Amino acid sequence: MHFNTQDLDSLPRQTRVNLINSLSGFKSANLIGTRATSGQENLAIVSSCFHLGADPALMGMIIRPHSVDRHTLEYLQETGCYTINHVHQDIIAAAHQTSARYPQDVSEFDAVGLNTEYCHDFAAPFVHEARIRLGMKLMETQELAVNGTVLVIGAIEHVLLAEGLMEDDGYVDVEQAGTVALSGLDSYHLTRREGRWQYAKPDRPATKISD
Amino acid sequence: MHFNTQDLDSLPRQTRVNLINSLSGFKSANLIGTRATSGQENLAIVSSCFHLGADPALMGMIIRPHSVDRHTLEYLQETGCYTINHVHQDIIAAAHQTSARYPQDVSEFDAVGLNTEYCHDFAAPFVHEARIRLGMKLMETQELAVNGTVLVIGAIEHVLLAEGLMEDDGYVDVEQAGTVALSGLDSYHLTRREGRWQYAKPDRPATKISD
Repeated sequence: MHFNTQDLDSLPRQTRVNLINSLSGFKSANLIGTRATSGQENLAIVSSCFHLGADPALMGMIIRPHSVDRHTLEYLQETGCYTINHVHQDIIAAAHQTSARYPQDVSEFDAVGLNTEYCHDFAAPFVHEARIRLGMKLMETQELAVNGTVLVIGAIEHVLLAEGLMEDDGYVDVEQAGTVALSGLDSYHLTRREGRWQYAKPDRPATKISD
Repeated sequence: MHFNTQDLDSLPRQTRVNLINSLSGFKSANLIGTRATSGQENLAIVSSCFHLGADPALMGMIIRPHSVDRHTLEYLQETGCYTINHVHQDIIAAAHQTSARYPQDVSEFDAVGLNTEYCHDFAAPFVHEARIRLGMKLMETQELAVNGTVLVIGAIEHVLLAEGLMEDDGYVDVEQAGTVALSGLDSYHLTRREGRWQYAKPDRPATKISD
């Protein structure tokens, strides 16, 4: 099957949205926790978090300012901090439900039945039920001229890991944590490790470290 | 376990790199195909592709200009086009091996045993063996001041899908295509769908469309 630009343009809107959202492959599933200076808490599922660098430790995400994500953007800009919490298999329904368009004065934590946790003098709420959690300091936000979405860049200030997830070499076993992957707009996937592979070099074939 | 900024700074470099690379959750696994105006072909695995918008249909990716990705960046800037090809389970070893630092005059297609395919008058090479493939037109590149990485934004001009992957509503079944997810720097994962979930609304609980 082949679609060119004209074919894509002629698709019904929702078909096109589902198709294009599927094409980047698997995405991370994270809950973004924020708290306005007014005290209002917010929680939103975001599938656009990506690794930006290890030194300094940075992560990026894309926010649509006119979507349900707008309160997240407003609060993290107001306070300069937010949390990133991995969605795992036991909290998929609650995590997905945060994407509903609740009124601004409703905390999605309460609405979907997840608990806030404040710790380490960090001002934004962590998700108590999550197993891999990051406290993020906002570095910059930038509106992308190409479509008006906002690139949010944050520095990792706190890493909270459930016991037993980090291996000796620093790798965190996100599969063991039950972290899920997303595809398209609404499909959640568990994973099964195919293997870890050695650092590749031109003079030897690809070799597994472990299955 | 808790790491703050000082704890992260005090970790051995490779431990820190493995840890931080694990924290964004699952990542997409894509092969980026380019061809210089000289005719030199290049193929590189990239784990940083992300959905940027459906209308216009845009995708972003982060390139490290001093890494093995540097030829990819050079060629896509030179020619204004590149391809994105999903890594599936049968080509993991070859895909991973493209991350080895081959000399500039070696095509990774040849080195790892994948085949180029040129079609639809598009100047960049597709991976013949891939099942989900995109022809991308470069829209902009931008060096991010925060760490010198480069944000590459492209428009989707061609979508090539193997038969039977697209559902009636436009969703592409990337799991059925065998598309893999990445975690950390070197771990590849197959997936098992937990479910597709209905568009969430405040006045009803989260409900699955299908398992």
